[in-house]
Amino acid sequence: MTPAVVCPVPPADSPLVLLAHGGGGRLMRRLIDEVFRPAFADPALDAQHDGAVLPAGPHRLAFTTDASVVRPLFFPGGDIGSLAVNGTVNDLAMSGARPLYLSAAFVIEEGLPVETLRRVAASMKLAVDAAGVRVVTGDTKVVDRGKGDGLYLSTAGVGAVEHDRDIGPAAVRPGDAVLLSGDIGRHGMAVMAVREGLGFETPIESDCAPVAAPVLALLAAGVDVRCLRDPTRGGLAAALTEVAEVAGVRVHVEEAAIPVSEPVRGACEVLGLDPLAVACEGRFVAFVAAGDADRALAVLRGYPVSAGACRIGTVEAGADGLVTITSTVGTRRIIDVGSGEQLPRIC
Amino acid sequence: MTPAVVCPVPPADSPLVLLAHGGGGRLMRRLIDEVFRPAFADPALDAQHDGAVLPAGPHRLAFTTDASVVRPLFFPGGDIGSLAVNGTVNDLAMSGARPLYLSAAFVIEEGLPVETLRRVAASMKLAVDAAGVRVVTGDTKVVDRGKGDGLYLSTAGVGAVEHDRDIGPAAVRPGDAVLLSGDIGRHGMAVMAVREGLGFETPIESDCAPVAAPVLALLAAGVDVRCLRDPTRGGLAAALTEVAEVAGVRVHVEEAAIPVSEPVRGACEVLGLDPLAVACEGRFVAFVAAGDADRALAVLRGYPVSAGACRIGTVEAGADGLVTITSTVGTRRIIDVGSGEQLPRIC
Repeated sequence: MTPAVVCPVPPADSPLVLLAHGGGGRLMRRLIDEVFRPAFADPALDAQHDGAVLPAGPHRLAFTTDASVVRPLFFPGGDIGSLAVNGTVNDLAMSGARPLYLSAAFVIEEGLPVETLRRVAASMKLAVDAAGVRVVTGDTKVVDRGKGDGLYLSTAGVGAVEHDRDIGPAAVRPGDAVLLSGDIGRHGMAVMAVREGLGFETPIESDCAPVAAPVLALLAAGVDVRCLRDPTRGGLAAALTEVAEVAGVRVHVEEAAIPVSEPVRGACEVLGLDPLAVACEGRFVAFVAAGDADRALAVLRGYPVSAGACRIGTVEAGADGLVTITSTVGTRRIIDVGSGEQLPRIC
Repeated sequence: MTPAVVCPVPPADSPLVLLAHGGGGRLMRRLIDEVFRPAFADPALDAQHDGAVLPAGPHRLAFTTDASVVRPLFFPGGDIGSLAVNGTVNDLAMSGARPLYLSAAFVIEEGLPVETLRRVAASMKLAVDAAGVRVVTGDTKVVDRGKGDGLYLSTAGVGAVEHDRDIGPAAVRPGDAVLLSGDIGRHGMAVMAVREGLGFETPIESDCAPVAAPVLALLAAGVDVRCLRDPTRGGLAAALTEVAEVAGVRVHVEEAAIPVSEPVRGACEVLGLDPLAVACEGRFVAFVAAGDADRALAVLRGYPVSAGACRIGTVEAGADGLVTITSTVGTRRIIDVGSGEQLPRIC
């Protein structure tokens, strides 16, 4: 066999990520050993195998994935790491599952400071600890300069469904109460404010947070939960419309009942955006049987992340899949989900 | 609330992916409905929920992830779609697991032809069918022109570990036989040949293929399987070195026993590469108890993907974590895993 070609040896202590960090050699292992393994400190990662082998119990599984491409990587209230973790944890919670395990796949643009990776990994670790989950497997790839945007981060999550309910749009029935866990629009406006250089007196912080605890508490309390949905991309408008369409029902909400903070409302006015269409990352909508609505709100208000829970509407008969809203001045209109990208790359 | 800003409406039938396709609105749903849902045709996807809820049985789980950033997207013998699926399926198999479910997260550069996405999705579907797995959940993000390279694709996989063995480097013992499932270097050289514009008489095809079937057959036959590893990035050299280091043993192989096809050998000579360091995507190394080696080879040779299985070496006493090789002319040397990127972005 031919000898390996002699390449210039990349500096082992480069403060910037090099293409060589993605090659499967010593530099990649060093990056993993020095940045990712200490950050997540998990025996499943220390086994250094291609996948993690994990106990799961006798339950059904929930499985979900997110690609995070937010720009900038850091914003008030979060960063791409906490966003990826909470996004995946919350998607599992929306299946009524207890989040257990996360994977993390990093696509890094050559030239990203290694220190940035460390900050992202540290933020992910705080987020997984807060959510009670573990990062158990991962992958690291490096792409050429100009072929990325610093860092893209894909997470997948596995959770245990510890009940027999089928939570989803198909379970929604006319008469169900529509609950919202708190005020909307913080995440989208926090990112947009940074990106557009808007200097508000009070910076808007993303609501990025895990919502699994109040969801599991609803289920433990025996609340008849029909469907759960987190209003991320496309905001509350898209979340409600998707459920209405798939469930084949009409959903009606009251604008006056939907909490929007003053800073978010102000920023939306400046940018000409509708808060209903702005992403949240720590909120969810719960469709519950009408008779359980008050009890559900009491449960939700016991958790800081959903302390602002309120009832915003009702599922109505009508298979048209529409979402209607009564405005603060009493007029009723149809909520239209936009055709495209109101706020690019906010998650 | 302020009315939604009136944006120019993007054309719904654009043949190119637009930023608007990533915004959570109608265009994104149309892309998902017209490209991804038909391609994967799975009830879990039709539920249109944030995550999939799935039966798993009483077994331990295997969980793994891959980010695929191969360039070009299509190459002889495969493409980014089949590569992502087989990479994840094979990582599950390396844990001794039966692959069950896959997630797929697409990071698409604005301007990618929708037709390219269709081709990738169709290729993924062929690959998941061949491997007997299902794509059950996904995510779609679009990044600005110049901030990607067409398409990055992250897959995660869940499998069931239907046995009580702990397969991994920690189980490797001196005396174990080192088996290789076929010839090496096809995938890396197939990609490099396209990228470097090398015109070989016989194009080299990637070995990209699922290897779960022969792995499960080994386990079903009761072969004492100690560790499994697929020689992807960094090739056979990196795979053996990683196992030797983590296991704390010495691994010795015979160069004459390691199959390399003539086209791969020739291409490696042209490019000055060592076939031992070139990635495979349809091969694996099995460390098995010495007494089971012949039986294991007989099992492997019963499957087309591992018909070329052979014994290449032995685990020796010695906690130095080194891999040594006896060359075809009889000299013994240490295999060094390169420090960095011999072949960037081949997976």
